[in-house]
Formats: sequence, C-alpha cells, structure tokens
Amino acid sequence: MHSTQGLYFEELEQGAEFWTAERTITESDIVMFGGLTGDYSSLHFSAEAAKNTSFGSVIAHGMLVASYAIGLCARTDMFAGTLLGFMGIDHWDFLKPVFPGDTIKVKIIISDKISSKSKSDRGIVVRVTEVYNQHGELVHRGQSKLMVKRRP
Amino acid sequence: MHSTQGLYFEELEQGAEFWTAERTITESDIVMFGGLTGDYSSLHFSAEAAKNTSFGSVIAHGMLVASYAIGLCARTDMFAGTLLGFMGIDHWDFLKPVFPGDTIKVKIIISDKISSKSKSDRGIVVRVTEVYNQHGELVHRGQSKLMVKRRP
Amino acid sequence: MHSTQGLYFEELEQGAEFWTAERTITESDIVMFGGLTGDYSSLHFSAEAAKNTSFGSVIAHGMLVASYAIGLCARTDMFAGTLLGFMGIDHWDFLKPVFPGDTIKVKIIISDKISSKSKSDRGIVVRVTEVYNQHGELVHRGQSKLMVKRRP
Amino acid sequence: MHSTQGLYFEELEQGAEFWTAERTITESDIVMFGGLTGDYSSLHFSAEAAKNTSFGSVIAHGMLVASYAIGLCARTDMFAGTLLGFMGIDHWDFLKPVFPGDTIKVKIIISDKISSKSKSDRGIVVRVTEVYNQHGELVHRGQSKLMVKRRP
Amino acid sequence: MHSTQGLYFEELEQGAEFWTAERTITESDIVMFGGLTGDYSSLHFSAEAAKNTSFGSVIAHGMLVASYAIGLCARTDMFAGTLLGFMGIDHWDFLKPVFPGDTIKVKIIISDKISSKSKSDRGIVVRVTEVYNQHGELVHRGQSKLMVKRRP
Amino acid sequence: MHSTQGLYFEELEQGAEFWTAERTITESDIVMFGGLTGDYSSLHFSAEAAKNTSFGSVIAHGMLVASYAIGLCARTDMFAGTLLGFMGIDHWDFLKPVFPGDTIKVKIIISDKISSKSKSDRGIVVRVTEVYNQHGELVHRGQSKLMVKRRP
Repeated sequence: MHSTQGLYFEELEQGAEFWTAERTITESDIVMFGGLTGDYSSLHFSAEAAKNTSFGSVIAHGMLVASYAIGLCARTDMFAGTLLGFMGIDHWDFLKPVFPGDTIKVKIIISDKISSKSKSDRGIVVRVTEVYNQHGELVHRGQSKLMVKRRP
Repeated sequence: MHSTQGLYFEELEQGAEFWTAERTITESDIVMFGGLTGDYSSLHFSAEAAKNTSFGSVIAHGMLVASYAIGLCARTDMFAGTLLGFMGIDHWDFLKPVFPGDTIKVKIIISDKISSKSKSDRGIVVRVTEVYNQHGELVHRGQSKLMVKRRP
Repeated sequence: MHSTQGLYFEELEQGAEFWTAERTITESDIVMFGGLTGDYSSLHFSAEAAKNTSFGSVIAHGMLVASYAIGLCARTDMFAGTLLGFMGIDHWDFLKPVFPGDTIKVKIIISDKISSKSKSDRGIVVRVTEVYNQHGELVHRGQSKLMVKRRP
Repeated sequence: MHSTQGLYFEELEQGAEFWTAERTITESDIVMFGGLTGDYSSLHFSAEAAKNTSFGSVIAHGMLVASYAIGLCARTDMFAGTLLGFMGIDHWDFLKPVFPGDTIKVKIIISDKISSKSKSDRGIVVRVTEVYNQHGELVHRGQSKLMVKRRP
Repeated sequence: MHSTQGLYFEELEQGAEFWTAERTITESDIVMFGGLTGDYSSLHFSAEAAKNTSFGSVIAHGMLVASYAIGLCARTDMFAGTLLGFMGIDHWDFLKPVFPGDTIKVKIIISDKISSKSKSDRGIVVRVTEVYNQHGELVHRGQSKLMVKRRP
Repeated sequence: MHSTQGLYFEELEQGAEFWTAERTITESDIVMFGGLTGDYSSLHFSAEAAKNTSFGSVIAHGMLVASYAIGLCARTDMFAGTLLGFMGIDHWDFLKPVFPGDTIKVKIIISDKISSKSKSDRGIVVRVTEVYNQHGELVHRGQSKLMVKRRP
C-alpha cells in the first residue's frame, strides 16, 4: 500500500535540487488574485493605464507569482506529513514582470539545514526558489525557511 | 473635481505611520486561496489532520496573510498613480498563526527613502508592514521595497 | 422534443405572479461578492467593526442581494430565448439587512407591459421583484424594465 | 499617525465631483459574476447565441457593471468609518452595452443632502454615479441614497 | 400564481427528449475548475506542455465538461421539487476534447423508468445525456440514475 | 536534480493501492461548485428546504465529491508526464451523502491494465477509486479508464 510521504529533515541533502510542475498564468488568475487579496492596483486591473507603463500591458501581481510559486512547491508534496510550519520569507526579489500567458516553473534548492537548538524532533530547512518563465528567464528569486520533522 | 491621487516620493516622511482598514479572514478565504495557488497542505485543508497539530485547527496560509496584508496596503491608495513597481520583499516573518475568524489590520511605516542613482524621476520607498490581529498581537512583520514617482 | 422556451411579450399577463427558487446567502457569498466587485466596506468584511453597528454582525451587500435576486429571476428561464435586453432598474429599496445564513426567495410580478413605439417586434415589460427572507419578511423591493420579443 | 477616514455628512459639498479608479471588465468577470449570482442568460454565456444578437458578442450583465461601479465607489473610501448604510437605488439606467475588454471609470456627484427628520446624528446623501468606458461614452447612469454619520 | 414545479415520476415519458441551454467553456472555467478540485494536470494548466500533445492547446477537464453538463440539466429545473437524490453515474465517456471557446449543449433522453421495489412514493429515472459542441459533434455521452418523487 | 515523474504503464502493478491526501469539504466548496457548474438544486443551496429532506441539511453535489476525488488522485502526480488522456468513467456510485465539514480521502486501486491493440506506445489503466469519510465510511466508489504512456 503506497501513500504520499514527504521527506524527513535527515533525508534532505544540502544542495539538492528539484523541479516543480509548470503553470501558465492567465488573465483570470490576475482578476481572481486581485479580487481575493483586494489589490486592485491599476498595473493589474486597467488595460488602459497599463498601455502607458513601461510594461505595455497588465502584469501579474508580484505576490501572485510568489504565492503560485510556493503553491507549485507545495504540490511536489516534498514535505507531505513532515511539515510543521512555514516560518517566513527571508527575501523575495521580483526581477522581471510576468504577463498573462507566461508559463512559470520553479527550481527548489535545499540551500541549508539548521538543527533546532531547543527541540530535538525537528529542524529548519532553508529553501531557495528560482522562478523561471517559458523563455528560461529568471523572473523571481526567493528564499524561505520551513520547520520540518525529524524521523520519529 | 476630486480624484484619487497617491503620494509622490517627496511627500513621504520617513517614520510616517498609516493604519489600513481591517479584514476578517474566513474559512472561505483559505479554501479559495489554496485553490487559486495550488497550496493544499493539510495544515490548511484537513480539519482531521489539523486536530493533531499544535494549532488544533486549520490555519491560514502564511502567503495568504501576507498577500491580504499587501492588499490592505494597496487599498489605502497611498501610491495611486505614483507606483511604478513593487520590487520585492526584503523579509517577512510569520510570527503567529492566523485562524478562520481572526481579523487583521496593518500598520504601515515608511521606514526609509532611497534616491535612485540612475533615474531622477523616481525613488525607492522601504515600507515596513506590521500585521495585528483583533487581540492586538503582532502576527506578521514584513519589509518590502516599492519604486515610486517623483513629482513631475 | 422539448426545449426551454421563454414567454413572448403577448403571453405575459399583467398582474401575473411567479415564485423563484430559494437561495441561502452564506459567509462565502459575501467574501466572494466583495472580492469580485471590490466592495470591501467594513460592514461586510470586519467582524470586529460589525459588532459595533446596529446590525451586530456582518451583513450582505445590498448589491449582492439585488444581484442574487435578479439571478433567481434569470433561473426561472421565464425569458429564455425571448430576452433582448435588461434596460435598467427603476428603483430598488434595501428595506432590511440580510445576514449570512438567511434564505431568500423572490416573487416576480409582471406589473406593466408597454408597447414599443418604434419597433413592432418587441415590447417592454415592467417587472416588480419582492425579495423575502425565511421569516416571510420583505427585505428588498425593486422594479426594473426588460425588453422582450414579440412572437415572430 | 494617519488612518483612512471618510467624510462626515457636513463635509460633503453639494455638487462636488469625484473620479474613481478604472477597471477593465474581462471574460473572467462575466463567468464569475454569472456563476456567483446564477444569471446564466445566453447574452452572457453563449458565444454562439451572442453572434446572432445586435451586440455581436457576449456582453457583461447590467448588474455586473452596476455592482462593479458601486465597488469602485466603495474603494475611494469616501465614507470609510462614516457609512451607516446603503439604502437603495433610486434608479439605474443601462445605456450602452459593456463588452469584455472595456475599461470603466465612474464619476461620483454628490447630488443632494437630506437631513434626517428623526435622527440628529446622521443624514442622507444622494449620490449620482456616471459610468464611462474607455471611449468616454456614458454606459450607465445611476442614483442612490446612503446614510452617513454627522460629526460626533 | 406560478412557481417552478418539476416533473413527477409518472409524468415522464420513456424516450422523451429535452434540450438544455448552451454554455461556452472559457479559459477562466478551466483555471477555476482546476483550482477548486485540485486537478492541475499539465493538460489543463500548461500552455507550453500542451503544445506538445496531440491536442495542441490546453483542454477542459473531462470532469469539468461532465459537471457543467449535469449543471445544464439541473438548470432546466426538470426535477425542481421532485428530486430526492442523484444516485450516481452508470457510465460517462469523454469522446472528444473540449477546448476553451467551445460551446456545449446537452440533449437529455429519459431512457428508462424503474419502480422502486421497497418504496411506493418514488421511482428511479435513467437519464442519458449527450453533450454536443458548436459543430454538432458528440463530445461526451453519459448515463446516470436519479431518484424522483411520485405524485403525492 | 529531481523532478516529478509519474509512473509509466509497465511500472504499474495490477492490484497496487495508493492513498491520496485528505480534504475537508466546506460550505464554501458547495457554493463555489454550484456557482461554477450552474447546479443550484435546493439540496445544495437552500438551508430551509434541506431541513425537510432525509439529509437534514444541505449536502455536497455528487459531482463535487467525484471531481474532488479525481482532483486528489491528480495531486498524487502518479501520472505526471505519463498521462495521455482521461477516457471516461466506467461507473461511479454516490453511496452516502457528504456534508459540509466532512473530510474525504481516496484509496486508488490499479484494477486492471489493458494493452492498446493499435498503438504500441501506450496502454489503458483501469483505476478504482474508493472515497472514505472521516468515520471510515465508504461514501463513493468509482471506476475510470486512463490512457498512459509506455516507457519510450
């Protein structure tokens, strides 16, 4: 009997790399993300205003791309059953705009592992996420920390 | 005739503070944010699994709270017509969990202003965002950079 | 072979009444309608602020109830294939608040029929919509005009 | 410390005009609004049927445009903290169709102010809303009443 | 006074046929259905991957088309007030792909009626659903069973 | 470098079993699924009507549970990169109602493998899906066919 089982802290190799699935960002995504979060900035919601920007058309919210990238990471189920918490974002750079119709793909790099000083049943994983578009351009680069279980 | 006009780079005072509106996070928000971003981690989607965590119930995604906080900032229209781009997140800490039914409110602090070396028509604003819940507890704290127009 | 066929202008009796189906308004509906339309007023989105109002809790947007009532009318398929256009709202009164958990039902009254002066293939229908909640209270009352085909 | 504070009844000038932000109506908006409200009329949901109408393609629901216009008004935060209730729509005319890809903008006119006979802490504001598309054409015109706080 | 009243078991003629309304499937529908159900297969979510399939572009989920077809059946209100339960799908074939922009329409055939052995107040209806696109091609064909009330 | 890679036809063992992740069905899900598919049957949308049914409260659509179950299967990424098409549903029984607040989990059984007569690069997989709720009760049972690539 098989079941989805994520990786324990010990099983992660520092420097290991993983590719997520791809996802195309559509006009729908921008409308829905804007509505859900309340971010209606004209950069995302006015085709007329967008014509006058350096982008030339509406672009996806930086937080949309970052959230979708984190979602693509979650879908790998890399930490299914082993994730205790997502601690936060160390930094996340929005390097290039993402346009409706662009397809993104994320490379996950296990950048570092930090043993917890106080608790012996868990450790902290430092995860770098590089987001690429369909042209192979790096559009976003972020680093975050996750708390992951040790093998019981 | 009045129109929504945001602040130009020169008009921002370093240290100035602004409160956003409030927003209650609901079970709906968690289901919709998870569906939209693809983040179905059991911490957010399984009432059964959540009973066995230290949280005791499902919690909102860290990226949901961060995105909603940025959305509350956008709704102040503080940079309406003056925002050139959201450059990224310097860091963002998920300090305490946010549960369905919690109400968040954001304090925006203009932490720093950086003149652009190469372009004279804009500057960089460093914005600190402190997210509080209805008990006055600090649940998230983040810092990000925005590119803002100078007065033409 | 049967097919959904709405009523032509001639077939409508002045004074005729129709009941629509019922629909329960949920917390979800308020979150989604607010996000879609951009109406995040605290009356609808802050459980904390709502405690201090005469309502005591968040309420549904007036436009949500009106739009859902029009939707319940559309679902009767009363004008399927015969509707040329929805001309507008003569007036619509928000008489009582609608709370999450309330169930609404609409009584449609064909209040008047007006022949079109210029076009012989159509007429105008004046439709009164009375919206009731599960206690039989009239919560909204509106009147609108529709352009409807005459039998070819 | 700044905070979003709306206008009190006394502060509104009769005849004052305000422009809202812009918003582009997309195919997504029509699908989502139809699904949420249950209004699946073929004018909005069948590309095939729409080819045979005078419009030539699907159009946005009249109630969608009206609700989005009210949402754009709400986003000005003109009555943040001072709004006691939205009383209803005096009338709202759907003058021209709105197509996917059109961008709307609303001009708000404070048409009249009516002191409340019974309550001294509030007044009624009559608000006219003119909705324009990107060609400067008036597509919708409505008038509604709001109950607004007097300065305490 | 009219009200929506569905057909009782006795009123259905074996072999009777009904057409539902039409519905255009959009890119939005695929994004929303995928997000809601968690089915992010690249056949539906990656424009890049889809170019390399026999389909040439993203297609709608089979379950999306089947669920929308069942929804079109529900909208006929054929069993409004008389439906006791939807028992399941006997079989459902996904014959041809459905692409964004395609418009579907369903032919309902009352294929058989089965009296309930144990309960005299109800019967089972066997319903065949043939789903056609705008070219008149049969894209899906399914059969399901419903439990329907007898006239009281 | 790791990447999500699904199973090829040859790698599947007849009789092999897999558990998916869990998912809690919420009131939100029912509202959203109903809105998206157009299925507004009172069994799902009227709290008042539902009180008078044998269920006692609103229930999830059968197609919602089936689609969510298929979504949970898709999330295992069992056929990531190897799925050529979802051919249809052999049968799917709605055995027990699913209520808001219930949590479902799916057991996938590779019931049979059928070599394609005409094409040597693929085969057909017969997949049984048993859907359980949090009490361990079998709520749905379905069988479907997928076309899967052979190892190149």
